[in-house]
Amino acid sequence: MSILVVGSVALDHVETPFGSAEEVLGGSAVFFGAAASLLTPAQIVGVIGSDYPMEKLRFLEQQGVDLSGIETAEGESFRWKGRYSYDLNERDTIWTQLGVFAHFRPRIPDAFRDARTVFLGNIDPRLQLDVLEQVRSPELIACDTMNFWIDGSREALLELLERVHILLVNDAEARQLADDPNLLRAARWIQARGPRWVVVKKGEHGAILFGPDSVFFVPGYPLEQVFDPTGAGDSFAGGFVGYLDWTGGRTDDDFRRAMVYGSALGSFAVEAFSVDRLIGLEPNEVQDRIRQFREMTVFELEVGAARDG
Amino acid sequence: MSILVVGSVALDHVETPFGSAEEVLGGSAVFFGAAASLLTPAQIVGVIGSDYPMEKLRFLEQQGVDLSGIETAEGESFRWKGRYSYDLNERDTIWTQLGVFAHFRPRIPDAFRDARTVFLGNIDPRLQLDVLEQVRSPELIACDTMNFWIDGSREALLELLERVHILLVNDAEARQLADDPNLLRAARWIQARGPRWVVVKKGEHGAILFGPDSVFFVPGYPLEQVFDPTGAGDSFAGGFVGYLDWTGGRTDDDFRRAMVYGSALGSFAVEAFSVDRLIGLEPNEVQDRIRQFREMTVFELEVGAARDG
Repeated sequence: MSILVVGSVALDHVETPFGSAEEVLGGSAVFFGAAASLLTPAQIVGVIGSDYPMEKLRFLEQQGVDLSGIETAEGESFRWKGRYSYDLNERDTIWTQLGVFAHFRPRIPDAFRDARTVFLGNIDPRLQLDVLEQVRSPELIACDTMNFWIDGSREALLELLERVHILLVNDAEARQLADDPNLLRAARWIQARGPRWVVVKKGEHGAILFGPDSVFFVPGYPLEQVFDPTGAGDSFAGGFVGYLDWTGGRTDDDFRRAMVYGSALGSFAVEAFSVDRLIGLEPNEVQDRIRQFREMTVFELEVGAARDG
Repeated sequence: MSILVVGSVALDHVETPFGSAEEVLGGSAVFFGAAASLLTPAQIVGVIGSDYPMEKLRFLEQQGVDLSGIETAEGESFRWKGRYSYDLNERDTIWTQLGVFAHFRPRIPDAFRDARTVFLGNIDPRLQLDVLEQVRSPELIACDTMNFWIDGSREALLELLERVHILLVNDAEARQLADDPNLLRAARWIQARGPRWVVVKKGEHGAILFGPDSVFFVPGYPLEQVFDPTGAGDSFAGGFVGYLDWTGGRTDDDFRRAMVYGSALGSFAVEAFSVDRLIGLEPNEVQDRIRQFREMTVFELEVGAARDG
């Protein structure tokens, strides 16, 4: 088992009310890989500029990530600067420098083409489709997208959806994609276009799994201190897809547990800048948090019925 | 067992993208009473103007609500007009006519003073305190409030909190009351001022129970069609407090189930205008929805641990 992830490898600049960080590891493939590799081997395909501090990524190798699919191109790396207000729910992008990422054309190394699981990070849907042309016969394909592609590359995105088993989006993206403010109807609309499973991420409000036969909710983990929300969604995806690759399970129960792993790893990610909290996270820390999610959501049906009129 | 609820009895005017309603039953005590009385006898104390169509309230009597605490005052009834946009998350108040509600001074009939449970709907905290002076020894006191009182009657509100077992507020109100954007810290702050249990309602995102020893989440019920969100919070409160009065249970498990009853009754309330959906709701409909909440949140911990590094 192994997961191939294709996405951005970036250098983030982040300002929060609690501090700031510059030139720290970021990008969808990095957050996803850092989270997923706590559960299963991961292979990253991405591009960096000649200025990228590759040595900073090495910790991922010790965690079981194969970095050999990260190519170095002449030019500057993808950089992004964001700022969070005090309530951490609003993020302002201060600037984005695409650098070499603007011309990213994923090339999947031969050794990666047999990956059991593929995660297509948030890039142009035409490139996501191109990745699917290069892999052999993945058992599970999951993808992310964003408002920019929903608006501007709708046709390619819909073509992609036909080939994808799992779509992970946030609630605004789901509504936009289906052009329906009702989340349940929006998810059903998306499912009718391909993905059997639609995961709607709602930040601090948790996430919803729309499956073929059921709906499942997982709350956001309540933290006394959210330090840096950057990468929460990709870490969620890493935990979610990573769990499915790790176990190979494909039942409704497996997908439910995958949701909890996603939410757990997303919650760790926001406890520190960049991927700092994911580095070297211990299996028992993950298991503890999974148990806490159960504790936060479990209730017993009692015997008896509502009062008669 | 019985619940005394003190709050507004109003006539609502509502516009939604799906239709509009005029002069329909509304107000916190009405929504609360309609929901709670599906589980346990309820007694309403409120005020109406001489123009109120009292016959419309009679259905509540058939459901086990004692209306004898609703006094009629000379003047116009409390009326409110609200409009919801297409996504139903935003509500604009078009106008409010307080009428006789502006001079409401709750007088608790002697027959109601032994109520086991008291719910103080969203009114001036000084009036809420005054109600507590009139009741004998309620086992459980729950209250609601809003931004207007948090801002303008903070001292009285804090005095009230010392005497209350359960505070039900929405997330913005919890943050405002504690002056802390972090919901977990805000809830702990409130708990330190009196209420052992703080229920934070988050609309479509569900609700969170902060107890003395645990945190419990219940999601919003996913509906294909939310018809009219008015009264969802008071119906939630009616289901929540109603369950606790009905069963008399006071354990963490009981409070968890109460949360699910609250969420279930809130979800019914929004399926139609006013209290229409709560009228004559069958016990098995409630039970079915409770079971669906369990289905939407249950997951099993598997054997095994996260992958070793």
